[in-house]
Amino acid sequence: MTSNKVEYQKILSQIQNEFSDTPLSGKVASYIPELAKVPSNKFGMHLYDLDGESHCFGDSNERFSIQSISKVFTLSLAMKMVGDKLWNRVGVEPSGDPFNSLSQLENDSGIPRNPFINAGALVIADVLVSAFSNPKAALLAFLHEITDDSSIDFDETVAASEQAEGYRNYAMVNYLKSFGNIENDVEEVLDFYFHQCALSMSCKELSQAFIIFANHGKILGSDREFLTGQQVKRINALMQTCGFYDEAGEFSFEVGLPGKSGVGGGIVAINPYYYAVSVWSPPLNPKGNSALGMAALERLTTLTGFSIF
Amino acid sequence: MTSNKVEYQKILSQIQNEFSDTPLSGKVASYIPELAKVPSNKFGMHLYDLDGESHCFGDSNERFSIQSISKVFTLSLAMKMVGDKLWNRVGVEPSGDPFNSLSQLENDSGIPRNPFINAGALVIADVLVSAFSNPKAALLAFLHEITDDSSIDFDETVAASEQAEGYRNYAMVNYLKSFGNIENDVEEVLDFYFHQCALSMSCKELSQAFIIFANHGKILGSDREFLTGQQVKRINALMQTCGFYDEAGEFSFEVGLPGKSGVGGGIVAINPYYYAVSVWSPPLNPKGNSALGMAALERLTTLTGFSIF
Amino acid sequence: MTSNKVEYQKILSQIQNEFSDTPLSGKVASYIPELAKVPSNKFGMHLYDLDGESHCFGDSNERFSIQSISKVFTLSLAMKMVGDKLWNRVGVEPSGDPFNSLSQLENDSGIPRNPFINAGALVIADVLVSAFSNPKAALLAFLHEITDDSSIDFDETVAASEQAEGYRNYAMVNYLKSFGNIENDVEEVLDFYFHQCALSMSCKELSQAFIIFANHGKILGSDREFLTGQQVKRINALMQTCGFYDEAGEFSFEVGLPGKSGVGGGIVAINPYYYAVSVWSPPLNPKGNSALGMAALERLTTLTGFSIF
Amino acid sequence: MTSNKVEYQKILSQIQNEFSDTPLSGKVASYIPELAKVPSNKFGMHLYDLDGESHCFGDSNERFSIQSISKVFTLSLAMKMVGDKLWNRVGVEPSGDPFNSLSQLENDSGIPRNPFINAGALVIADVLVSAFSNPKAALLAFLHEITDDSSIDFDETVAASEQAEGYRNYAMVNYLKSFGNIENDVEEVLDFYFHQCALSMSCKELSQAFIIFANHGKILGSDREFLTGQQVKRINALMQTCGFYDEAGEFSFEVGLPGKSGVGGGIVAINPYYYAVSVWSPPLNPKGNSALGMAALERLTTLTGFSIF
Repeated sequence: MTSNKVEYQKILSQIQNEFSDTPLSGKVASYIPELAKVPSNKFGMHLYDLDGESHCFGDSNERFSIQSISKVFTLSLAMKMVGDKLWNRVGVEPSGDPFNSLSQLENDSGIPRNPFINAGALVIADVLVSAFSNPKAALLAFLHEITDDSSIDFDETVAASEQAEGYRNYAMVNYLKSFGNIENDVEEVLDFYFHQCALSMSCKELSQAFIIFANHGKILGSDREFLTGQQVKRINALMQTCGFYDEAGEFSFEVGLPGKSGVGGGIVAINPYYYAVSVWSPPLNPKGNSALGMAALERLTTLTGFSIF
Repeated sequence: MTSNKVEYQKILSQIQNEFSDTPLSGKVASYIPELAKVPSNKFGMHLYDLDGESHCFGDSNERFSIQSISKVFTLSLAMKMVGDKLWNRVGVEPSGDPFNSLSQLENDSGIPRNPFINAGALVIADVLVSAFSNPKAALLAFLHEITDDSSIDFDETVAASEQAEGYRNYAMVNYLKSFGNIENDVEEVLDFYFHQCALSMSCKELSQAFIIFANHGKILGSDREFLTGQQVKRINALMQTCGFYDEAGEFSFEVGLPGKSGVGGGIVAINPYYYAVSVWSPPLNPKGNSALGMAALERLTTLTGFSIF
Repeated sequence: MTSNKVEYQKILSQIQNEFSDTPLSGKVASYIPELAKVPSNKFGMHLYDLDGESHCFGDSNERFSIQSISKVFTLSLAMKMVGDKLWNRVGVEPSGDPFNSLSQLENDSGIPRNPFINAGALVIADVLVSAFSNPKAALLAFLHEITDDSSIDFDETVAASEQAEGYRNYAMVNYLKSFGNIENDVEEVLDFYFHQCALSMSCKELSQAFIIFANHGKILGSDREFLTGQQVKRINALMQTCGFYDEAGEFSFEVGLPGKSGVGGGIVAINPYYYAVSVWSPPLNPKGNSALGMAALERLTTLTGFSIF
Repeated sequence: MTSNKVEYQKILSQIQNEFSDTPLSGKVASYIPELAKVPSNKFGMHLYDLDGESHCFGDSNERFSIQSISKVFTLSLAMKMVGDKLWNRVGVEPSGDPFNSLSQLENDSGIPRNPFINAGALVIADVLVSAFSNPKAALLAFLHEITDDSSIDFDETVAASEQAEGYRNYAMVNYLKSFGNIENDVEEVLDFYFHQCALSMSCKELSQAFIIFANHGKILGSDREFLTGQQVKRINALMQTCGFYDEAGEFSFEVGLPGKSGVGGGIVAINPYYYAVSVWSPPLNPKGNSALGMAALERLTTLTGFSIF
């Protein structure tokens, strides 16, 4: 890589320009009304580099429902709390199946393939419900600490809607429990899970939170290690191979960075040792990832000339 | 990463020592006699860095059957020959199923999930059979050029054994042809495929060949671009997400480098911008990857303190 | 077939003798304590012919948990209530998969393959919950009428145990609801379903109830048609192709009669125009059907010299 | 059932009338040119009862390609030759999957679910190739004997076309061989298989051949037992549960007779102790069974008022 400082702001502005006239493709998630009513033309991007500088455009300060991006936070907390025992209950392999598949669980005796498919995230939620007396407060406390922003919170309306439409998640957690891979009461686990999905954060806040994955587990300018180097390596590897449902290969192939997407239209990616970057555009491609978000990140690694590969 | 030169030779020697007393686990591949009779205690490693320096130990100069590692070479040639049209015939997603699965093909209308499962490699073989009048000679020419070693060749005894026991590959290529995803005669495609699997190379030769994937597509000290930067990024991404059958996640999680394994017990991995490294130990773990090879590479990224993540 | 009256009692006695010294194979169902504590050596058989004569041996008058045999009763009621519209919500094909599989539902968009796998029976339960203000009372009324025995009832202890261990059924019904194939509240549907499985009936009572399937839909000596001839033909066809989980073919092949089994160790079969027969022996073979029950029925069709084939 | 002679000819005439104005639905098989060019309006039916009387209409004397109907003949021969050992190599369960599926073989270690899916029929073909020095001659001899018509023969043009387009069958037999479930040379097994599918027979000849399955294994007016009563019971049971690809349940449900269909548009069914009946109409429904043929047989059991159920 070049030793010269990459001109991130210039590149972000170019990306914004390139896509300003592109007609939007894809469909905004509509399984709950709160997601359906988000304007489809929202578009923002925020890159936070290891020098502590921020670069951004558009709606990068507006909060949205981070949905599955939250799975990276809960996995991080669970790894801190239970260590390598975690891997007895969830695998580390890509699933090759859509994110809400029950078939594989059947063949794999209730051990989800990885922590980022819904089944795996529900097991992680169960781990946190066991580990904390107030798991929702513990998750917020973790986020407040790594972002230094105590206003980050759950959107209770979204959480309630998730629950009302959550038959498939009810199915999944009961199914996991039938294999003995859920310790707690089904309702308690789902209440936590629906809340984690209902976290509201902006691109800026997500980039700040994810900088620990680009910086050996530490927030910038601090010595405090939230995660060990090995834990960070493993979380990044999981994002790389499993972060995009059954489109993880495509993202890796086009963008070449570890990342995680959510059906709210957000994507966060990191370039280890360099930066964390977040993008938000609600319309999703058929695999459930932000269409414009993926395109913008592809341009980022092409224009900067480096990815992790 | 550190600006100081990493002491690769010291680290390799430490790895050799660490494992010198470890009892071997796993089983040498035995589906053909030529693989079954390789001594199980063979162990060698070779790291070639971007300064052009070689570091090695053990049986790193002895040739072995590279088997599926050859799929990286044929994919590279196919990408050069047909460009992005290639992706109409083969996907870029991890399969989540064992490497010789036919089930997914059935659901995916004959489009293999990626070029590194057997079905995908057979499609790539078909592409090369169409592209070259003498595809076997073309493959050897490519290898001779990137390694500057014209003695690299097929082991005809291995190729003949592969064919004699190749019912599953015969099944696969006929099945692909039933979907219209094989253009050439079945026997011709398989003859090429069985030969590519029967390439004999040493760890040293593999590291030299793979340095192009760590060096923007160029061999060291040359301006000649064998592959474009974008092609290299994509091949590396595919190795990362699909290079280890249904253990790609585990390798990514433990080692954190793009790589490719073969049932002959070889593994090659690259650290983009830093090095290519090869290891050879015949006994395979239950997923079909060299057990000791995976352990040695995990130690390499732990001891050097950096992976791609 | 012979015009002479078959000597059923003699044949039943021979079957009793033949198996009196056979060591029991198989395992009594143990997922709820009430089933686990039934003595494994219980053995009874009752054949009710169209002349209205009863033939029996052993524990044929002792009630046991009929479990999935109840699915024939609920299907019959549902066919009466909604007619052919029923087949928009459930199929008529054998599943080829274990009885509690969720995978097929995923591929079939929430339409269970047939009414005798658990998913299908849950849809049928939902139909009855919609059709009756008090579906449990309606089911009992139907059974009381066709058996002329008003003491047949649910075992509330069994029903409560089913619910306590019913995570997989909770999973299934939530999953069905996620596809829109459950109209009522999940708890209401499951309460009905757990009760139908907890019906207690003896071999004698089951044979009396099933005689309508051997007699054009009428009970013996009555003109009242509980089901039409076409409905009976269809229910019998479904028992033939789907009555024994993934062992329907084996039962058809060995016994050659339409029938239905339950994990309580009961099996009922009918020979249209001739008889209904029930057998009870708790130990189950690996597919979940009464091992001794299947053997006894195979002897019945071999010794009488006729099956439906 | 009634003791009065059923007026089969009157019923067949009614069926012919009922469908004379019905527009044809479905598509004639077109994977080989010989099937594609058969006129879609061909329609014939022939019923042969146990009194030896024939009833028919339309094109019932015209030969057509019997295709998968031949699987009943080869199964019968294989049962005669190897007895119950046969069931070590092939199962007796419905598959629940389309007729040419490879997925199940993968899960079932190369043991096909039943003898009527293609994989099972290929194993049966292999059994006959092992059992006879000239298996094709042996199959013809068997058919000549049970029909007393020595002109029945293979259509060599059809057989050659089957082979030219038979990639999926080549895939299947190689796959079976990779599991060790094919003893002979792949080409020899397929040559036999493509020929059996290319048998040409008329409805009349098929009904005469199938009468043994309605008559305890004997041809009418003969004491010679071609198959034992138990073998007949088992073959009929297999036709009932597996004779119609993934529509076996539907056929059982609508028609209520054991039967077997072929993509040439033929269907044969038997009513044990009563008759064998054949129907031919080339256009196939989406599951690959003759659309008009199924409808005609449904009318037959409805108008006669009795099926096996």
